[in-house]
Amino acid sequence: MNKPYVIGIDMGGTNTVFGVVDARGNVLSKSAVKTATHSDINLYIDDLYNELIKLIDEAGGKDKIKGIGVGAPNGNYYTGRIEFAPNLPWKGQIPFAELMSAKFGIPTVLTNDANAAAIGEMTYGAARGMKHFIMITLGTGVGSGIVIDGKLVYGHDGFAGELGHTTAIRNGRKCGCGKSGCLETYASATGVARTAREILELRKESSLLRNLPTDDITSKDVYDAAIDGDAIALEIFEYTGKILGESLADFVAFSAPEAIVLFGGLTKSGDLILKPIIEHMNSNVLPLWRDKVKVMFSELKEADAAILGASALAWELK
Amino acid sequence: MNKPYVIGIDMGGTNTVFGVVDARGNVLSKSAVKTATHSDINLYIDDLYNELIKLIDEAGGKDKIKGIGVGAPNGNYYTGRIEFAPNLPWKGQIPFAELMSAKFGIPTVLTNDANAAAIGEMTYGAARGMKHFIMITLGTGVGSGIVIDGKLVYGHDGFAGELGHTTAIRNGRKCGCGKSGCLETYASATGVARTAREILELRKESSLLRNLPTDDITSKDVYDAAIDGDAIALEIFEYTGKILGESLADFVAFSAPEAIVLFGGLTKSGDLILKPIIEHMNSNVLPLWRDKVKVMFSELKEADAAILGASALAWELK
Repeated sequence: MNKPYVIGIDMGGTNTVFGVVDARGNVLSKSAVKTATHSDINLYIDDLYNELIKLIDEAGGKDKIKGIGVGAPNGNYYTGRIEFAPNLPWKGQIPFAELMSAKFGIPTVLTNDANAAAIGEMTYGAARGMKHFIMITLGTGVGSGIVIDGKLVYGHDGFAGELGHTTAIRNGRKCGCGKSGCLETYASATGVARTAREILELRKESSLLRNLPTDDITSKDVYDAAIDGDAIALEIFEYTGKILGESLADFVAFSAPEAIVLFGGLTKSGDLILKPIIEHMNSNVLPLWRDKVKVMFSELKEADAAILGASALAWELK
Repeated sequence: MNKPYVIGIDMGGTNTVFGVVDARGNVLSKSAVKTATHSDINLYIDDLYNELIKLIDEAGGKDKIKGIGVGAPNGNYYTGRIEFAPNLPWKGQIPFAELMSAKFGIPTVLTNDANAAAIGEMTYGAARGMKHFIMITLGTGVGSGIVIDGKLVYGHDGFAGELGHTTAIRNGRKCGCGKSGCLETYASATGVARTAREILELRKESSLLRNLPTDDITSKDVYDAAIDGDAIALEIFEYTGKILGESLADFVAFSAPEAIVLFGGLTKSGDLILKPIIEHMNSNVLPLWRDKVKVMFSELKEADAAILGASALAWELK
């Protein structure tokens, strides 16, 4: 029997969102569970099962589902395992595809959440028709999916494209991965909040951000203050965009992409972050790339992009 | 008529070496001309022609030559042009493949010199059988050839893999390309000599290197001093290896290669440079790659690797 639907699951450090997708890329239904609150992987899968099975039943039951595609931090396409993910509660190697297949009785395939987003963007979004682009996801962490000659780069071991853990500032901020100065400690939503706290502590100028408890400041608060013309908030975006632009320049030197597609919460800041990114990327690339590599925002709705990308993997299941 | 030979040309910033290669990868004859002394591209091609035609005649004449493959700095595989090469005397865009085809009456194909070396290594050297590796050439400059899924990465515009111009030290040394802090200003043979001059000026300790006129010190002099136990010379290799290792860690995060293959003059320093490279690469990668990615030296003779790689391109000519 022809199975008309697939499941796409986007596992983030904080939340996991998932949906039922049809062959035309419509997300028919979706829901979410918390990721971070489950220290036991089996409890997490139980929780996910209880929510997802409702959507599956609404879609006509398990017989209608061809497969489950998962985008997860440090998800390995080759092995189906989540391995040493710094932003997830489970340490070591988790045979996630296997656990999911056993729990649901539906074949499951896994990749990096950012790779899944890149596949979604290539199939339905801003990167349609592009053979060479780099997707950078700016969420709780910073992820990336690299497309070369129209194909996702998985590398020798399945883990290619961890650009959030390249070094942006030598001996810089401590990262959850154990390294120092990783791009994601600066250019993620949490990195922006960290920059805010650092600047507010070091400096004396007044700022709308001082009206908030320092430890509770989010990237959204910084955005709101910047929109109101707050000088410190504007400086935080300039600083974040500069670091990201400098890093993007090095990524361009690697794969010479047609475009870099930015995705995730921070892109809501629009030109506040895009302008410094483009300026500092162009001043740090070789002359041959100056003003030639596009930097653009995702054209997919934030939640749907990763669901669609992950689900696209499931269509490829035999 | 079946043409039994190809020509491989390896254009470096200082010298151009070339040879006649048979179908089994034997370099039958080879010779060289200076690159840097020709400020006019046509005089350079005249010089190259006069030397190379002797080898071609020895091999039985032009009718025996299937094609010419060239590895040149900033050589574009797609267009056949050398474009904005910072270490060559000719500025702007040079239609090199076209000029060569016209001069020799033999079809000519062009790529980056480091890409050519990577193809040579994959076909005949340390990277035989590998699908994912990165070749780093440590010569007058620092070049790179990236292989993913068994194929050279050319990128959207033909210029992928300019890893010598990623930023190793933010706001660091001025580079010939116009940027600051490029990896090649530290990790090339000239970078090592520059490090020597800097350290000798800044510091007071005695060193064998102080017996030489500071401006004439080469990486070979630093090697000789290090072998004699000179503390400053040993420190120069430690410093160079550290910077290179830190950069390699970021390259691993991009394409997750099985190995990094190092090639060129500096590899003659052996463990003096290899040990700090491996140490600092491993301390700057994510845990999942620690002690997993091989770092090895080319197994091809320095001059032959690039000749063989460039010549391999010519076999693919229609």
